[in-house]
Amino acid sequence: MADGRELFYFDDPGHPERVAPPDTRDLPTVQTGSTMRYDVLTGEWVTVAAHRMDRTFLPPADHCPLDPTRPGREPTEIPADSYDVVVFENRFPSFARNPSVEVPHEVDGNPLWPQRPAVGRCEVVCFTSDHDASFAALPPERVRTVIGAWADRTAELSAMPGIEEVFPFENRGLEIGVTLQHPHGQIYAYPFVTPRTTQLLTQASEHRRRTGRDLLQDVLDGERKAGTRVVVEGTHWTVFVPAAARWPVEAHIVPHRAAPDFAALTDEERDELAELYPELLRRLERFFDGPDGPDAVSVDPRPPYIAGWHQAPVHTGRDLTRLHLQLFSLRRAPGKLKYLAGSESGVGAWIVDTTPERIAQRLRDAAS
Amino acid sequence: MADGRELFYFDDPGHPERVAPPDTRDLPTVQTGSTMRYDVLTGEWVTVAAHRMDRTFLPPADHCPLDPTRPGREPTEIPADSYDVVVFENRFPSFARNPSVEVPHEVDGNPLWPQRPAVGRCEVVCFTSDHDASFAALPPERVRTVIGAWADRTAELSAMPGIEEVFPFENRGLEIGVTLQHPHGQIYAYPFVTPRTTQLLTQASEHRRRTGRDLLQDVLDGERKAGTRVVVEGTHWTVFVPAAARWPVEAHIVPHRAAPDFAALTDEERDELAELYPELLRRLERFFDGPDGPDAVSVDPRPPYIAGWHQAPVHTGRDLTRLHLQLFSLRRAPGKLKYLAGSESGVGAWIVDTTPERIAQRLRDAAS
Repeated sequence: MADGRELFYFDDPGHPERVAPPDTRDLPTVQTGSTMRYDVLTGEWVTVAAHRMDRTFLPPADHCPLDPTRPGREPTEIPADSYDVVVFENRFPSFARNPSVEVPHEVDGNPLWPQRPAVGRCEVVCFTSDHDASFAALPPERVRTVIGAWADRTAELSAMPGIEEVFPFENRGLEIGVTLQHPHGQIYAYPFVTPRTTQLLTQASEHRRRTGRDLLQDVLDGERKAGTRVVVEGTHWTVFVPAAARWPVEAHIVPHRAAPDFAALTDEERDELAELYPELLRRLERFFDGPDGPDAVSVDPRPPYIAGWHQAPVHTGRDLTRLHLQLFSLRRAPGKLKYLAGSESGVGAWIVDTTPERIAQRLRDAAS
Repeated sequence: MADGRELFYFDDPGHPERVAPPDTRDLPTVQTGSTMRYDVLTGEWVTVAAHRMDRTFLPPADHCPLDPTRPGREPTEIPADSYDVVVFENRFPSFARNPSVEVPHEVDGNPLWPQRPAVGRCEVVCFTSDHDASFAALPPERVRTVIGAWADRTAELSAMPGIEEVFPFENRGLEIGVTLQHPHGQIYAYPFVTPRTTQLLTQASEHRRRTGRDLLQDVLDGERKAGTRVVVEGTHWTVFVPAAARWPVEAHIVPHRAAPDFAALTDEERDELAELYPELLRRLERFFDGPDGPDAVSVDPRPPYIAGWHQAPVHTGRDLTRLHLQLFSLRRAPGKLKYLAGSESGVGAWIVDTTPERIAQRLRDAAS
């Protein structure tokens, strides 16, 4: 790209050989001055990305930076006039390979507050060139291409120095602050094992020590045996609502084999996931429909969601966890959101006002 | 109260002896069927309070259940026709003393998923009978009465069987889902040490082991020495922005003495806090004002906030931490909120787009 960022095209099978056109824009080099500070009260790293205040916020549809560069329009982030799937480095990254800052090792010279440049990488994944599409509506062949892109990028990012965890995710919906409506996701490559994964490794390690067994395998076996929260059972994957779901809608997709990340998936596993995942998203879209048809109360009848693909960390505990999807929505009912207030945001104690079994029943009922 | 809940009046000094009138309503007994499920992936308890779906949602101002019961109006939750501060049990509690449910010890008979009734207590604290007031506008004498109520309730709740942590907090603002606009807070008495407090104890314990010293004392000393994030320094308390603040606006108030909770505060400490805390809230209200005056872009120019009073747990680690306020707002700018998206809600990795030092400078500048 004109400012030195990398961009990769991933085409569906059968696409003719691509000649990537140059990025003709006159782009200034981006400031990537993120720093990480150690929060001594929690033991977690907090990333301070002050330059992100200026990022693009809900541009009009005819100025979408994720559209292809079509003749007669201003150049976008993607120089080609069409694409299937494209991945490129975020112009306003929270983590960058070479942060353009030097920071002291400690805030105010106090060893309580370690600090370092936020070395890592943030990529954008465009799932389709169709601005008005959604992931749920993509055909399985396209989802298969996206899975291939996730696998390829996971392998590449994992090989970069300093990367400890690679997290592909999609934020969807104005209600959770999405700033670009074009169907896209992101991949964050963190220079630390994230708090949620750290918790999972602690739990899995304790389970291994006590029982000699694999935690996620036991959870999967338990869900399949109980059946009360299973939404779809495939040959290689099972979709279920976790026994202690903490969101108004939440579902996990877990592989039957302990694959640590996307890169480790077999062709058969990828093929089935390409069917199951958009099927789950379509069920979520119908989750709030009443007897009179689609949810008409909300501004956008398609529920907001966060889809997070948890992968084993790059260098540690790879045999303790496995790739799994955590899909969740903050929507409680048409026009109503779950807010994280005092109990959740203050002390981390989650309170939900529905049961996992009820969520699972509604997701089963939402079959097309 | 008519359905057996407890209610307590706390009057400002000089108030004549109160004769509490009876609650004349015909209230059905509330279903309090909350259960707690152990989330084996994180090691945290998640509370399932399915009955809370029916709770009161933004009633019109002339039907506010937190107003006093004035002649000619329907009875409210408070039978008296006036009050200073009143505390009563929540009608839709997440935790209750005697949950009206019996649940198996495990979900689906699987030892991976322990489950138990959500034994605890949830109380509502009304700060004033004035429906349109705010905590920031309360006179110090009233704040002193509120602090007395928090201290009294903390002592009482801590003495109840099964209570492990007492957390007084206030959620303010439609943007964070507040369902009643009358100035009020809540007190949650949890049957477990909450995740945030567990993290803090782990960090403080490790710090004690390594240095022999008190973590919060060292943080406080470090902040006072550096000065760059201090907002107000008092005789008994210091107000500062933490070195790794994770919200667009965040400030802590920490006592100079290691008081574990409100009940342990001296009169002098309570008196000074009664001045400092509303002063901090007033600075937050001016935080987003531009050169042209109050923030006019937002629906409610007064920023939403969560004020959480972290206290030492009831039975463990009481010498490892101390009472402290964590005040934070999700507002990034007038009309703009910080959303917890993939990185925060998915893997717990926080990214902020401002620096703690900048927040502190703006809070200092917002002096009246």
